[in-house]
Amino acid sequence: MIQPRTLKGFRDYPPDLMLQREWMLEQARKVYRSYGFAPIDTPALELTEILLGKGGAETDKQLYRFTDHGGRDVALRFDLTVPFARFAAENIGKLSTPFKRYHMGPVWRGENTQRGRYREFWQCDFDTIGTTSNAADIEVVLVIHDLMKALKLDHFAMHINNRLILNGLLEELGLADQTKQALISLDKLPKIGRDAVMQEMAEKAEIAPPQAQRLLALAEMAGANDDVLARLKKDFGGNAKAADGIARLEALLATVARAGVDPAMIKVDLSIARGLDYYTGTIYETFLTDLPAIGSVCSGGRYDNLASLYTKQVLPGVGASLGLDRLLAALEELKVLKNVSTPAPVLMVQFSAEHLGDYQKMARSLRAAGIGVEVYPEAKKIGAQLQYAEKRGFRLALIAGPDEFAQGVWKIKDLAKREERAAAANDILNVIQTMLMQTML
Amino acid sequence: MIQPRTLKGFRDYPPDLMLQREWMLEQARKVYRSYGFAPIDTPALELTEILLGKGGAETDKQLYRFTDHGGRDVALRFDLTVPFARFAAENIGKLSTPFKRYHMGPVWRGENTQRGRYREFWQCDFDTIGTTSNAADIEVVLVIHDLMKALKLDHFAMHINNRLILNGLLEELGLADQTKQALISLDKLPKIGRDAVMQEMAEKAEIAPPQAQRLLALAEMAGANDDVLARLKKDFGGNAKAADGIARLEALLATVARAGVDPAMIKVDLSIARGLDYYTGTIYETFLTDLPAIGSVCSGGRYDNLASLYTKQVLPGVGASLGLDRLLAALEELKVLKNVSTPAPVLMVQFSAEHLGDYQKMARSLRAAGIGVEVYPEAKKIGAQLQYAEKRGFRLALIAGPDEFAQGVWKIKDLAKREERAAAANDILNVIQTMLMQTML
Repeated sequence: MIQPRTLKGFRDYPPDLMLQREWMLEQARKVYRSYGFAPIDTPALELTEILLGKGGAETDKQLYRFTDHGGRDVALRFDLTVPFARFAAENIGKLSTPFKRYHMGPVWRGENTQRGRYREFWQCDFDTIGTTSNAADIEVVLVIHDLMKALKLDHFAMHINNRLILNGLLEELGLADQTKQALISLDKLPKIGRDAVMQEMAEKAEIAPPQAQRLLALAEMAGANDDVLARLKKDFGGNAKAADGIARLEALLATVARAGVDPAMIKVDLSIARGLDYYTGTIYETFLTDLPAIGSVCSGGRYDNLASLYTKQVLPGVGASLGLDRLLAALEELKVLKNVSTPAPVLMVQFSAEHLGDYQKMARSLRAAGIGVEVYPEAKKIGAQLQYAEKRGFRLALIAGPDEFAQGVWKIKDLAKREERAAAANDILNVIQTMLMQTML
Repeated sequence: MIQPRTLKGFRDYPPDLMLQREWMLEQARKVYRSYGFAPIDTPALELTEILLGKGGAETDKQLYRFTDHGGRDVALRFDLTVPFARFAAENIGKLSTPFKRYHMGPVWRGENTQRGRYREFWQCDFDTIGTTSNAADIEVVLVIHDLMKALKLDHFAMHINNRLILNGLLEELGLADQTKQALISLDKLPKIGRDAVMQEMAEKAEIAPPQAQRLLALAEMAGANDDVLARLKKDFGGNAKAADGIARLEALLATVARAGVDPAMIKVDLSIARGLDYYTGTIYETFLTDLPAIGSVCSGGRYDNLASLYTKQVLPGVGASLGLDRLLAALEELKVLKNVSTPAPVLMVQFSAEHLGDYQKMARSLRAAGIGVEVYPEAKKIGAQLQYAEKRGFRLALIAGPDEFAQGVWKIKDLAKREERAAAANDILNVIQTMLMQTML
């Protein structure tokens, strides 16, 4: 006999977790689609040369890579961006630009397994490519806003920045050549703190403490968005890059407000740099006010060229990614997920096997009205069937035995309240709809 | 520069195909859930010893198998049944029985690539385990019925059989020892024809032509379900196995009819045996009347024990699987898929960039009412924007320039009919809802 087990770093999704994941995916799908982002999918396996070197040395090491039956060097995708770049390079002629896509699916990385980190996890990306228009950057804010609301994560803050501003500041500070390392270090500010960032800047980029201090002072600048932008304009508006970045952020804030979204959820934050990423313009991070420790749950930015390794066609774009599994793991750890493992709210008790057709008939009429009904498969004792219903998280149980069939009146049990009602057969749909509304309050 | 391409046997899903796949998955999800089947997911990768030998020599050869970073022998799942068996063995104590699950996801097989066959394809399985009750077998028929209706495949025929009947017949014909090979050959009847089946039975199972002829005559028995079952009962009712199988089919037909499903869509068909599969009771195959050539699109059956290789707990069950990609490939080949690559019906033209906030504001109010609206990202010429809208398959375009803002009246273009209407800003939702209803007729 073989011991049943999953691979280290992998996990199953039992119904309670999976119901939550499907709900989250459905919310994301609805929001993405409502803005005209269209779904695509790409294979889990790609030729290794397509993936290698696109995510840096770290992801190269983590690739699930092997030789297939045809002697090809292949690997499992480690994100959804590189396959999208390959897809775009291959198909953009047919698809034409602007092209808006979302992509939701698992990715694989053989990384060290930490708490809440798995070697297989889901990403939910959305991007608009083929345009440099700020309208696309602005829309990302609207999408993230709607996404958080749809996920019922009402307490969130979206932090935005623009790489152009950071680049302009570094130019003005005489640190243009150290941009890359400066941003990598800056990005670590919330994790390692001020002193360690200054030390790293000195060691790795020869940025002297006074300069590092000026940079950190700017990054940590607090205040209303308008004040921050006004001060930046005053101090660095003469720098062309900074001025461009500031103008784009200003237009973003004004347009989002005009579109009717509360500007209080957006914070201009010069400290977000998104490390090594290939972003070149607007940058987004999204934090849950009640769960800051899990980091950004929806991040992204603008890039100059998506697919330069595969095509000469320049494909600028902007997008973001919902860290679905990070969010799910956090909700799981916080034990805020409901202990429900059935997607159907009603259990039809099988009182006697001879009435199975009648039970399924009634169940079908409820299903046709959009109410899920599971019919218990065996005519076991009612107590055992109700115990099953409670364990699975059903909200109502529907019972009809000889007496009920004789009178044409069925019993409906509210499993949480442990209350019972009777309803005429032709009135059951109404009564159940009302009771389900009440259990949701 | 790297040539962008997919691996042989793999393919991308661009928006038009992916919209169709997501729609099909949504229909399946809704139907499965309405019966209380709960979603699960398992990793794409499993330890090879979990998968090996479970699907026969053929699937063993086709495994995407390799050594991971920890030196483990791992492989990509080749179906959703074996991972479910492993999952059930590992978790059934916690989950308890009966357990109803659905599982939708990709599987991988390094098989020869034929027309419409890919090395990565989706399966959509549903099963009830932990009960031998015929109620679960009967429910499979109801689920398949609802599934076909939900997929708008109204012209279908569900063929059902019971292995117990076949086993009983073979016993009575003195062929009990040749059961396995007899059923493998019988299963090929629609593909290779009568003579070839008889020849194979003679060669591989030493079944003499007169016996083979009797078996084939039974398998090909035509007529109304009642007549077929009556004749079987008369001729073979003395055999315990056959009698049991006949009784279960009779109860199935009676209960399904009592539940209100048209019995004309069900056909008792002794010729379906499902070859090498591990089925032991009821067997299901589903054919599209207009597309018989693609074979069964939803097949399954009852089995005695799901997870005997991983646990001593006996887990009998019954279920079926929707061959989603086979169906999708067939619809694609038939060119019945709509040429639509946007999930949103409305394109908001960006007439002038300064009104972007107003466009997004109007778009948000439509999105809140459930109508997807894409705002074009650049203030290009209207003609170019409308061309984009037509190419993508948008149904309506919404236009507002200086005149429209001055008058508070927007233009709405029906892109298929090439008609234009005007609507007051506060009436746009109503007008668009009406126009969308009309374009769907």
